[in-house]
This record gives sequence, structure tokens and C-alpha cells, in this order.
Amino acid sequence: MLDLFTTGELRATFSERARVQAMLDFERALATAQAKCGLIPASAAAAIAAACDAQSIDLDELARQSVSAGNRAIPLVRQLTRAVEAADADAAHYVHWGATSQDAIDTGTVLQLRRALPLIEADADALAHALAALAERYKATPMAGRTWLQHATPITFGLKAAGWLAALERDRQRLAQLAPRLYVLQFGGAAGTLAALGERGIAVAQALADELGLALPEMPWHTQRDRFAEAAATLGILTGTLGKIARDLASLMQTEVAEAFEPAAAGKGASSTMPHKRNPVGCALALAAAARVPNLVATMLGAMAQQHERGFGDWHAEWDTLPQICLLAGAALHHMRVALEGLEVDAQRMRANLEATHGLIYAEAVTMALAQKIGKPAAHRLVESCARSAIAQQRALRDVLAATPEVTVHLAPEQLDRLFDPQSATGLAQLLVERVLAGCRSRRI
Amino acid sequence: MLDLFTTGELRATFSERARVQAMLDFERALATAQAKCGLIPASAAAAIAAACDAQSIDLDELARQSVSAGNRAIPLVRQLTRAVEAADADAAHYVHWGATSQDAIDTGTVLQLRRALPLIEADADALAHALAALAERYKATPMAGRTWLQHATPITFGLKAAGWLAALERDRQRLAQLAPRLYVLQFGGAAGTLAALGERGIAVAQALADELGLALPEMPWHTQRDRFAEAAATLGILTGTLGKIARDLASLMQTEVAEAFEPAAAGKGASSTMPHKRNPVGCALALAAAARVPNLVATMLGAMAQQHERGFGDWHAEWDTLPQICLLAGAALHHMRVALEGLEVDAQRMRANLEATHGLIYAEAVTMALAQKIGKPAAHRLVESCARSAIAQQRALRDVLAATPEVTVHLAPEQLDRLFDPQSATGLAQLLVERVLAGCRSRRI
Amino acid sequence: MLDLFTTGELRATFSERARVQAMLDFERALATAQAKCGLIPASAAAAIAAACDAQSIDLDELARQSVSAGNRAIPLVRQLTRAVEAADADAAHYVHWGATSQDAIDTGTVLQLRRALPLIEADADALAHALAALAERYKATPMAGRTWLQHATPITFGLKAAGWLAALERDRQRLAQLAPRLYVLQFGGAAGTLAALGERGIAVAQALADELGLALPEMPWHTQRDRFAEAAATLGILTGTLGKIARDLASLMQTEVAEAFEPAAAGKGASSTMPHKRNPVGCALALAAAARVPNLVATMLGAMAQQHERGFGDWHAEWDTLPQICLLAGAALHHMRVALEGLEVDAQRMRANLEATHGLIYAEAVTMALAQKIGKPAAHRLVESCARSAIAQQRALRDVLAATPEVTVHLAPEQLDRLFDPQSATGLAQLLVERVLAGCRSRRI
Amino acid sequence: MLDLFTTGELRATFSERARVQAMLDFERALATAQAKCGLIPASAAAAIAAACDAQSIDLDELARQSVSAGNRAIPLVRQLTRAVEAADADAAHYVHWGATSQDAIDTGTVLQLRRALPLIEADADALAHALAALAERYKATPMAGRTWLQHATPITFGLKAAGWLAALERDRQRLAQLAPRLYVLQFGGAAGTLAALGERGIAVAQALADELGLALPEMPWHTQRDRFAEAAATLGILTGTLGKIARDLASLMQTEVAEAFEPAAAGKGASSTMPHKRNPVGCALALAAAARVPNLVATMLGAMAQQHERGFGDWHAEWDTLPQICLLAGAALHHMRVALEGLEVDAQRMRANLEATHGLIYAEAVTMALAQKIGKPAAHRLVESCARSAIAQQRALRDVLAATPEVTVHLAPEQLDRLFDPQSATGLAQLLVERVLAGCRSRRI
Repeated sequence: MLDLFTTGELRATFSERARVQAMLDFERALATAQAKCGLIPASAAAAIAAACDAQSIDLDELARQSVSAGNRAIPLVRQLTRAVEAADADAAHYVHWGATSQDAIDTGTVLQLRRALPLIEADADALAHALAALAERYKATPMAGRTWLQHATPITFGLKAAGWLAALERDRQRLAQLAPRLYVLQFGGAAGTLAALGERGIAVAQALADELGLALPEMPWHTQRDRFAEAAATLGILTGTLGKIARDLASLMQTEVAEAFEPAAAGKGASSTMPHKRNPVGCALALAAAARVPNLVATMLGAMAQQHERGFGDWHAEWDTLPQICLLAGAALHHMRVALEGLEVDAQRMRANLEATHGLIYAEAVTMALAQKIGKPAAHRLVESCARSAIAQQRALRDVLAATPEVTVHLAPEQLDRLFDPQSATGLAQLLVERVLAGCRSRRI
Repeated sequence: MLDLFTTGELRATFSERARVQAMLDFERALATAQAKCGLIPASAAAAIAAACDAQSIDLDELARQSVSAGNRAIPLVRQLTRAVEAADADAAHYVHWGATSQDAIDTGTVLQLRRALPLIEADADALAHALAALAERYKATPMAGRTWLQHATPITFGLKAAGWLAALERDRQRLAQLAPRLYVLQFGGAAGTLAALGERGIAVAQALADELGLALPEMPWHTQRDRFAEAAATLGILTGTLGKIARDLASLMQTEVAEAFEPAAAGKGASSTMPHKRNPVGCALALAAAARVPNLVATMLGAMAQQHERGFGDWHAEWDTLPQICLLAGAALHHMRVALEGLEVDAQRMRANLEATHGLIYAEAVTMALAQKIGKPAAHRLVESCARSAIAQQRALRDVLAATPEVTVHLAPEQLDRLFDPQSATGLAQLLVERVLAGCRSRRI
Repeated sequence: MLDLFTTGELRATFSERARVQAMLDFERALATAQAKCGLIPASAAAAIAAACDAQSIDLDELARQSVSAGNRAIPLVRQLTRAVEAADADAAHYVHWGATSQDAIDTGTVLQLRRALPLIEADADALAHALAALAERYKATPMAGRTWLQHATPITFGLKAAGWLAALERDRQRLAQLAPRLYVLQFGGAAGTLAALGERGIAVAQALADELGLALPEMPWHTQRDRFAEAAATLGILTGTLGKIARDLASLMQTEVAEAFEPAAAGKGASSTMPHKRNPVGCALALAAAARVPNLVATMLGAMAQQHERGFGDWHAEWDTLPQICLLAGAALHHMRVALEGLEVDAQRMRANLEATHGLIYAEAVTMALAQKIGKPAAHRLVESCARSAIAQQRALRDVLAATPEVTVHLAPEQLDRLFDPQSATGLAQLLVERVLAGCRSRRI
Repeated sequence: MLDLFTTGELRATFSERARVQAMLDFERALATAQAKCGLIPASAAAAIAAACDAQSIDLDELARQSVSAGNRAIPLVRQLTRAVEAADADAAHYVHWGATSQDAIDTGTVLQLRRALPLIEADADALAHALAALAERYKATPMAGRTWLQHATPITFGLKAAGWLAALERDRQRLAQLAPRLYVLQFGGAAGTLAALGERGIAVAQALADELGLALPEMPWHTQRDRFAEAAATLGILTGTLGKIARDLASLMQTEVAEAFEPAAAGKGASSTMPHKRNPVGCALALAAAARVPNLVATMLGAMAQQHERGFGDWHAEWDTLPQICLLAGAALHHMRVALEGLEVDAQRMRANLEATHGLIYAEAVTMALAQKIGKPAAHRLVESCARSAIAQQRALRDVLAATPEVTVHLAPEQLDRLFDPQSATGLAQLLVERVLAGCRSRRI
């Protein structure tokens, strides 16, 4: 049901077959580790490892049986045992030895996340590059700064891109900090004590973690769901950052604004009835993700209070929710990467829109200049009155000011010129862009 | 990804192919209606109707193109047009005539809901019957009433079932009231004015609504999403009712309580490592739905502020969310129906648990009886003190009371006997059950 | 903490003191009903009734003790008993007789809602009137229809207002249908059996319901929370409708659009630094409500699975959440009422914006006219190509079309004129407005 | 409205007056920094600093004017200017110089968080100590491990406490990692370019950050809300951890389980009608927080897509939501700290409950012991059959096994004894507890 949102490799990582394969990866590594620790025969481990292939699993049977079993692991172990038995009857005894369903399910999810998050991080890296290039290129390109959807004071388009970039950089930092808490083994047996493995429990656990390239946590975490909740929340924040970019871009594509556009592609964003339209399709998909993910994160957070040594209901609620969060975050990222890598920027239109209010956008600068002479409240009142006149008479604010003695006594014509120069009106925009870019560079070294 | 939760026919209603078919149902009815109104040739309508079969749609191509088109309708109309063209080149001109993508998508969703909700209502009806039977059968079967998970005063199991039933009855009422607002046509063209149809717009709209068996609303509702939000919320409330039943039942199945059980079935609820367990599997799936649906409802409510004449992002956020709500609500309902229709009740254990606190559960009754003599505060203090003695000395409360002169001066032994009789301690439980059952019967007539 | 959002009378309805008074209203009515039924002395009832005044409750003590008691009712009954005792020692025995904390708390909430919802309904009625007046007045005033924030085809401003109105009308219908399920008594005693009242339980319950002007439900509903969940969801849908209006209006106030405005008021929406701005302040508050309420509704839905005969945690989660929903919905409604009652509409600017794309907004109409001659796909391609030329050459679409032989062979100049006439381009807009207004009128009769 | 949930100092941090003071702290530091940088006279800075006292602000006027201004900063600056003017008319010109409302509001929120989070961290530290003490003390105290609310295999109570502790430790780590991203200045002026400050913008910003003890970010972050979203999410995860503890503890307090209890306190958890009850009051409040916070986090995440250089609606939605998250998280923490610091543990009852299933809880251990002889599937089937006999005949599982030749041929009586010894049945529980405690110690050094 996620066709419109998900993309190639990430989607494959969360297919039903990939999920099953991740659980089988756990089972294979478990047998291997137990053979290494002398708990089960090496031949059994080999037979089990050979059978741990999701291609040979009957997914329909698995789905049917999962409903009555209450999870996928029980019928999966059943199919796996059958397959091993066919090859080596003795080996079948050692399948899933000492593990509980949740060990396979949770570790499987960790393995899927370890495949998925680097894909997301790679796309985030690419998007960061695209944003850095935009910030650099347009750092001095003036455009209207807009607050509450109203023109405020001039900024540069590079500054807008730098703002997007700075947030994305923090998101990447969060993803990096998440990793050591997330990429850990789940292995505890029926109630988390590894009782079924006797003395060698920790040795097996360590060997299993090594086999899978995961860290061994201090203890199992069957009903401590903060690791998955944090993954969800971190992706939720990333999706929020992407939603912000999409909201801005869709607004820039607006007919009345028309300052920047998603790249044109055959059939992309065309309307079925209006040949002239250019819909913000990538933005729409990113915004849809940004509308959905926060509530999926709420589900993950709300499902944390799992009872005693194994939850139910809340645990089940995680199974589809966390993959959906990954897919939606990844899709939003993909669409924003495509949009920003090919962004079409109309600097001329930006300049034209800047002048659309006949100079009102420079009002704050004039106010501040006057404030140094007559104080801010008086300056504010004076400029406000000139602005109202300009609007009422449809004149340029600069002309009204130039015809107002209370103004001209303090500001000479050349001072007014400078105040109404878009370039000089963007304040520290360039400097701020450079600070952000320098920060990026320093983190890459 | 919803294997564990969804059930047969309902699942089919929300398959990708069913979604496409619902949109094609709209296109077929549109052509038919337009032919009836003389807007397009009857032969064209016939050719279009013949091609409106989801089986002949290439879903992979559709999915790919949907991403760049921003919705499914544009590439679907393209495929449909191609198919019509192959049969009747002239007819192809009239495909999707005067409609906009959202007309097909929204009306398609309405059609899917009109298939899905009766399935849900039928399951709700069956569950109501099962609950009514339980309420009737166990209306006088005493068990511990539990508040804050603590024994409170005795109730009957029939009263518990009647409480579940009464809520379900209100949910069914809500579904009934929703229908006339939900089963309406969406048809407005590009910006909702039906401008492309000239004078005959309303006639076509009425004929189209008739063709589909939907009501014609006062005007199109492209960015007025309250109809779908209400469907989501109504199913959300239903799912909450089901979650309540599941929470109670899982608690009754608890090892230490063991008063009622989901029906046993081969392999159902068995643990992979503990042969004696009987997990509340149906409850788990219903509780998972109850954990997920509220946040999906929040997505639907949060997506209502769609801009101007067509939203984006928020609109896209609805597409998978509303079907998921239907599927999860339907799955919760299915599992609770199965669980309650086959419920195993252990009335003996209920009775045994009632006595587990050695009579403390009758404390309130004693308090009230004494209160009529010595006032409530004094009675409360006296019984509280006796209760503490009983706990400390591990004696039956009745014995402690019988040995307390301040009590016996007011309550004769036979009065104490009656106060400690479980049957008489359940107050109006039976009467309340009968009120609920009478209400059900009256609504059925 | 809700200063920016809440309004006068509604806010008072949900003050801490009003909450306490509502619980005391329950206690007073309970004593009165029990006296009527002969359960307690009339003098006791009179003494209790006299003491049921929230002004005499020490709210600080109540707050402190509520934390250890786990709810407000226990310490409130304690204070009430103390007050009654001071006046009539005997009467104190009969305070809260046979009731449980939740009876007072839930019924108190019902009473608060019964005061709050009519305030909301009155504001909704006023807003509906304002919207109906706008729809009527501007039913033929053309403006750009916008989809995906892009100009689509012309609509009228009246049609936009009618869309807002039609949704609000459905919201009012939902509020009306909710009432009989919501305005009911909660009264069951410790575990919902009214055991403490003996034979006269139902008689007392009926008398109590009558006293409060509430309906008597079939049975108590301590852990069946669908009534409150429905109230929350219904207000959530209403808030969504209001968020839609606010989103539209804020977009119309945008500097580049400037077609309609919240009424100006001294200091309203002024920026602290930019004298020329006019911020959509009322819209911001309504949108904030629309951003918050859906998740508060999710809390109410998610809290429905309350265990056995009394929940905890989930029940506590409702206490502040439902009032917040009422306050936010009410605030959104108030701000939109003020905004729409005083709305400033700039029909000239609407007309100017309509022409901003040099006729591209009429492209669909031309396409449909041509489609009747050469089929839709060909017409679509032809108009699309002309539109691209018009954009590239910055010419009016009408001129490009008039210079394109493939077009002029089918469309005479006067036909082109009609297609580019804004009035005739708004399709059925007026008719649709009239349908909505007629619907409103018919519901008022 | 938050009486039941919030606690002393934290509550004070988020009072309306504290919020205003935090904004005034910004204004005072701004003036001081600007004087240091030579932008405004030192005497003006001194006069402004002197007036920045929330005690002299009229909060009612502020509330009223905030509604029409759309935020608190505008009317606050107005009151502040008035106060400064009264003391030094010239100084009044320099109030809020070059800043925008959001600079004061956001920095104020950062300052409030910097006061609140250390309070929360201190409580988390105390709770961690209490949990570590419990884990150490009860590391070898056997109790039933419970999965799906069913007895699974034995654990120790220390292991359960260690699980709570390990999660809390990760939460503390997250809070520590959050700090450098959160404790940063917001300062950008009207559109984030510091244009009003001319060349000295960065110098002032740095001096202002120094004055407040905050870091200077690379650029302003007016519409990049990830910092606040992360604070919300981190507290949301912490609240989930606390909800898990509360869920477990309330379940342990259950009448039928009765293994551990919140500390008794006068009037705490007493029922108004049942003298023998002991309600999990602290747990209820923590669970209420855990039910509410996830959806408040969703509001914060959902509000991230704020438009262009200043959002509206979404930004407003944060104002009460983030403080509520802090208060609820802090309250949950406080109540769990009190509950765990004074926890009453009934090790005898734990032992008794362990035996309640007549040895079924040891079934897995027997299965694994047999599995080494006859393979797991056969062992599973054999033990399952014995378990069913034991249940049907109400005999101890050990006795049934001892009477089953297929069992006794593999397991001698002393082996059976060891398998049914609770101490030896808890597997690696003690070792795992020690790993967690060692981890805690290592992080403290």
C-alpha cells in the first residue's frame, strides 16, 4: 500500500521476505555461535546455516500460522526445523536452541535497521551536498524573507538553504549517536535469563553478537523498548526537517511566488486537466511523510510500557510501525534529494517579488536607522505612518519617506538609497551561510 | 506488511487491485451517466465501461508512474484511455471527461468504504450476539470486581459482558449515523465548479451518483475532509471498545487470575519454549490495533486543513492511513468475535478468587451496613481497622468482625452471613444486565 | 498556560473551581435524590446541599491531597464532610452515600461539557451565519481556484465560503447527534453494581439523573469511555474544519495574494519590527489548535482500554485532556468567528490575481472546448503546447491561441472571448452556493 | 489544570511568571551585550537591566494583549519599555534593540529548559540509585518471570530492577547528548539576518550568548525546530521508560500478585469506599504521563514544517506543549522515584507465586535438559504432554515427570530436583544484574 512513497533498495529492506531473512540470519548465527562454543555439533550448525534461506520459506503458510501463533518466529522456526530435518535429522534438534521468539524478531529488526539506516544516511549525505552547493551559490542572491507568510525583510536564498542544511547536519549527528545504542543483540531466552544455556550463556551471547557484528548489551532488553523508540524519534525529527524543506519549496513554487521549482521531468507534476500546472509532487510526498510519521512515532513511544518480561499488543504494535517510519522517512529524503539536486532557481523573480511591496520590505531597516536618531518607538511610529501612506496612495515607500521632512532631516538621499539596496539589506546573510558551510567542512575532516 | 492483523474479505477490499477497481467503477459510471445525459455517445460509454476492469491494469507501471504523477488517477486514466483506444479510438476521447483526479480517488475510497463498513458491521453484530449470550448466561455468576487492579466489591461476569455490549451497541449506532454523511459522491472537476460540463453539470452529477448508489452532496468536498475524518474517528472509537474487551480478557487469562480464556485451537497461543502457556493471542492483536489506530486517527484529523481547492501532502497522507484504520479495526473486531464466541469461562475459579482476600472484598458492604447505624466515617474507620487486623493475622475478615464487639452490637451473625454471601453482594448486577439486554432487543425491533 | 488560546465563558467553565463545583453539584443532587427516595433524612440532604459550594473549598489543600489520594473526589468529599459536620453532625454521615469517586468525577465532567458545548454551538451558529452571508454576497465574485497552491481554474469567493459552511453544518449535525450519548449520569458505586444502595439503587439513580437533568444510562460506564472519546473526536473534527478555514484565510492574506484579511484592530497582528505587516493572528491561533487537538484526541482514544471495573493511568490521562480539547476547539471557533464576521475582501485583487498568469487559468476551459472537436488527448496536447509558448514568450494565452491555426479552425474569436471571461468560467459555482444555502435554510426550519 | 501531576520546583520553572522572567533575562542580557559592544550606552543597558523583573509585569494585561498581538513578546516589550521609560526616557529607545519576538520567546524557552532539565536529571540520578540498590539487594531473589501476563520461567527481582535501570541509564545518556544541541542562543532579528545590527551583529550575538551562558549556533534557527523536537522526544522516551516501571509495579501490586508495593503513606492510595484497598497511585500518575506525552511529542514533531523565516500556528502549538511534556515527564519521574525509593518487596509472596503453577514454570528447564538427550521437538512434545496431565490431574509437574518412564530414563531424581530448584532456575540473572551495575559504576567514574 506504500507505492507512492517508498523507494528501491530501502523498500526491499523491509519486504516480508527481507524480514524473514533477517530472522534467519539470527538463527544461522545462533547455531554457528553455539557450535563455536561447543554447545551443539558443528555439523548441525552447518546444516542449519544451509537452510537459513528466506527463498525457501513459504510466506503464505507463515502468514496464516502467524495469526494463531501470535508472531512470525514460531511458524518460521517450524518451517526451518522441517527444512533442516530433511537434510540432517539430528541437526533439527538444535534449531533455535535456547532462544525465544522475541530474540529472533528483535534481532532481525536490528539487522534490518542496520541495512536501512546507512541507505538513509547516504541519501542524507547527498542531500547535504546539494544544499551546501545551493547555499554557496546563492549566498548573496537576495529574496524576500517571509514571516507569517508576509514579507518581512530581505534575506538571501543561500541563507534559506543554509538553514535547511544546518538542521540536516544535526539530524545526521543524531543518527550517528543513535547507532551504538541501536546496533545491539537481543538474546535472552524465555524470560531473559538465558537459563536454557547453562553456564555458557554469556559466551554464546558474545559469540552470537560477534557473528552478527552487533554489540552485546549488558542484559536483554525484551521489554525495554527505548532503543527502537529512539530510532523512531530520530527518524521522526529527520522527517520533520525534510517536511520543512518541502513546505518551503512548495510555497516557492506557488503560482504567485514562482521563485524555485522541483526539476521538470516527463509527466512529473502535470495535472490531468490543466496543461500549464507544475505541481510540487516531490514536496507533496515529503509532506505526506511529515504528516504521518509523527503519529507513528507516538505509537512507538506509547507502546513502551510493555509488561514484565514480555509485552503483548504494544509489542505487536511496533512490528509494522517502525518499518513504516523508516520507509516514509527514506521516501521523504529521496524526494527532497531529487528535488534539491535538480532545483530550478529563478533569481530574477526573487528580485522582482522583493520589490512587489514598493519598498515596504525595507521598512525595518529605515526604522532602525531612524531609531538611532529619534529612538525606536518614535521611529517605529514614523515609519509605520509612512508605510500606511505608501499603501493607501500606492506609492513607493522610498518616495513617501523622501517627501517626509521628519525623515529627511535625519536621513540624506544617499542614506535612503543604501537602505533600499537589496544587497546591503540582507545583513549578515552571507556571513551566516559561511559559518554553516565551515561547520560542515569541519565535521567532514 | 499487515499479515498478522487483517482478515479475508476486508483485506481484499483494500488490496491495490480493489482500490484501482473502485476508481474504475467511478470512471465507468461517469461515462454511463454522461451518455444518459447526452454528453457523450452511448457507444463511447459502452467502450469505456467495457475497459473498466482492474484485471487488465498493469499495477507495476501504475505504481511507477504514480510517483511522478503525484497520484494514481493520472496514470490510471492513461492506461484506461489506451485500452479504450485499442477497442474504439473515438471513445477514448471521452474517458474521465470533465473529472479531476481527486473525483476518481475520493469516490473510489467512498466505494471501498461502502464495501468495508458492512463487513465490519456484520462482525460487530455477531460479536454483539456473543456478548448478549454471555451477559444472559452469566448474569448471576459472581466474580471479583476489580478497580485499579485491586479487588473492589463483587460483580457478576454477566455485568462485565453487558458493559462490553453496551459500548458496542453505541458504536454500532455511531456507524449507522455516519453512513449518510459518508456515502456521497465526490465530483467537481478541476476546481470544484464542474465548469468543464457546461449547463449539464448537475444533471450528470446526479446521474453519476444514482449510477453508483451514492448520495449527491450539496457541493464537492475536495478540501473538506470531515467525512473521512469522521469515518476514521468512528472506527477509532470502535477499536477502543474492542481494546477494552481485549485488555479485560487478557487480564482474566493471566496465570494468577485464570477466570476466562480465548478458545483453544491447535497451535494457538502456544509458546515456542514453554509448553504450559496459553497466550492471549487474539487479545494481543486487538490491543495492537487499539495502540495503533488512535494515532492513525490523529493523522486523519491533522490532515484536514487542506489548502484552497485541492490539498497536497495532507491529502496524500490520507491514502494509506484510512485503509489501515479500517483493516486494523476490522482485525480487532474479528479476533474479539472469535475469542468471545468461543470464550471458556471458569466460574469456579471466579468464585475461588472472590474468596482469595479472605472476605476483604465484602468490606464495603459491611461498611455500608454499619454506616446506617454509626455513620459512614465511623463505619469506615471501624471496618478499615478490622481489615488491617485480618490482613496482619491472616484471618478471615468475617471472623475478625464477629470477634469485634463494636461490630456485633450492630450486626447479628445472620446479617454478617448475608453480607458475606457473594450472590447477594453483587447488588443490582442482574437488573443492570437485563436493562442492557432489553435495550438491545428494543433496537432490533 | 492557555492564555493565548482560550476565551471568557468557556475558560471559566473549565477552571479548577468550576470543576469542583460540578462535582459538588453531583453530591448535592445525590443527597437530594436519596432524601426523595427515603434513603437519607431530608434534613441531612438540606445540610449537604447547603455545603456544596465550591467557593468554600480550599483548592490548595485539595490539590495537595489529590496527589496522594490519586483523584480529586476523595479529598473533596473529605472537605465537604467536614463542612457539613460543622453545620449538622448527623448529616455528615450521608455525604457521598453509596457513590464512588468516579461517579462524582465523571458526572462532574458531563455537567461541565453540558455547559461548554452549547457555548461552542452558539459560536458555531454565529460563524455559520457569517459564512452564509459571505457565500451569498460573493457567490458570483470570481477568483483563482488553487490546487496544490497552483492556479487551477476560476471559482468564486462565495463558493469557497460555501465549502467552509457546508463542513461546519455537518459538524453541527455531529454535535447534535452526540448529545444523547453524552449527557448521561455516571452512578454505580464501588464496582458499578450500586450494591451499597440495596433495593432502591435504580430509584435513586433515576431520581439523581432527573435532579441533574441527565439521562439514566442502561448501566454505569466507568470503564466504557466511548462517550468521552466521541465528544473529543467530534470536537476534533470541528477543529479540523476551523483549521481549514484558517489555513485558507492565512494564505489569502499572504503578501503575494492579499485577497482577504482578518479585520484590522488596534495592535492586532502588528509586527514588533516591521510596521507594514499584518499577521494572520486569529488564523495562527486556530491553526495552533488544529495542530494540537488531533493528538489530544489520540490520547482520549488511546486511553479507552481501561481495565476491569476502574482504570488507572488511562483514566487519569483524560482529566486534563478533554477540557483542553474543549478549550482549544472553542478558541479556534472564537477566533474564526471574529475573523469571518469582520472579513475584509478585496474583490479587485482577486480579479487581478486571476489574470496574473496571462490567461493560463482558462486553459482547461479551452481544452474542453477543443476536446469536443478533436478529442481530449489531442486537445490537451495542443493547449499544453500553446501554454508553454505563452509562458516562454510572456504572451497572453488567448493571443497565442488566436495565432494558432489548429485552434482557430475550431474556435472562433467570440468563442475564445467567452472562454476567457472570468464570470462564465466559474461553471456551476453560483448554483452550488445556492444548494448549500438552501440546505442551511431547510435545516433551520 | 495540572495539579495532580506536577511537582514543586519544576512546576515553578514553567509558571507564567517564570516564562516571562526568562524572556526578560534575554532582554537584559541583550542590552548588556549591546552596551559591551558599544552599540548602546552603558547607562541605557543598566536602566533596562534594572527593569527586567517579572514581578513588576502585569500578567493579566499581558495575557489580554497577547491574543491580539499573536505572541507574548510584543506586549511584554511594551510593558518593559514603559517601565524603562519611567526611569530613564533615553534608555527606553534601546529596549529589544535589533531583536524579534521569536528571539526572546525561543531563548526564553531554552533558558527554562536549562533550569528544568537538571531538575529532571537529578531525579533520574536518584531513581537510578534506588534501582541499583534494588537490583543489588534482590539479585538472587527468585520470582516468576511473566510473558504475555503468563508465568514463563523464573527470574530474580533484581533482574527486573536491573532492566528498569539499564533503560534509565540510556535515557540519561540521551539527555546528556541533547544538551549541546539544545542550550544555544536564538538571535536573528526580523528575518534571521541580524540586519538591524549592522557590522557588529555577530559580536553582539556572541556577547549575548556569553552573557546567558549559551552556545552561539552557526545561524539562527527560527524555523528549524529540531532542537525543541529532540528535547520533546528525549523526554518522551524517558517517560516511556518510567511508564514501563509503573506498569510493572502496578501489576505487582495487583491483589492476585501482591509481590511489591508503593510505600504506604497516610491516606495514599486509599479508596473512598473500600478500606482494604491499596491503589497504585504513583503508578497511575506515571502511566497517565506515559499515555499523554507520546501524543504531545507528536505535536512537536508535526509542528516542525514551519514556513519560510517564521512559522505561525505550528510555532504557536509548541508554546504550551513543550512545557507540558517537561512537567509530565518530571511528574512521572518524581512519582517513580518516591515509589522505588520506598518500595516494599514481599520476597515470600514472590516465592509462593512461583510455585502456584505446581512446577509448570520449570517446564522449559526440563525441556532443555531432555532436549540434550532426545532432541528439542521430542522433548517439547514430551514435556507438553506431562504438563497437560499435571494440569488435568492437578498434580505437581515434578511428580508427573517422576512417574513418566520416558523422562526418568534420561533424568535421575537429583537432576529433577535441581531443575525444580528456583535458585538454579534463574539462569544468568545474577550475572546480568552485575553487568548492569558494573556499567553504571563505570559511567560514574
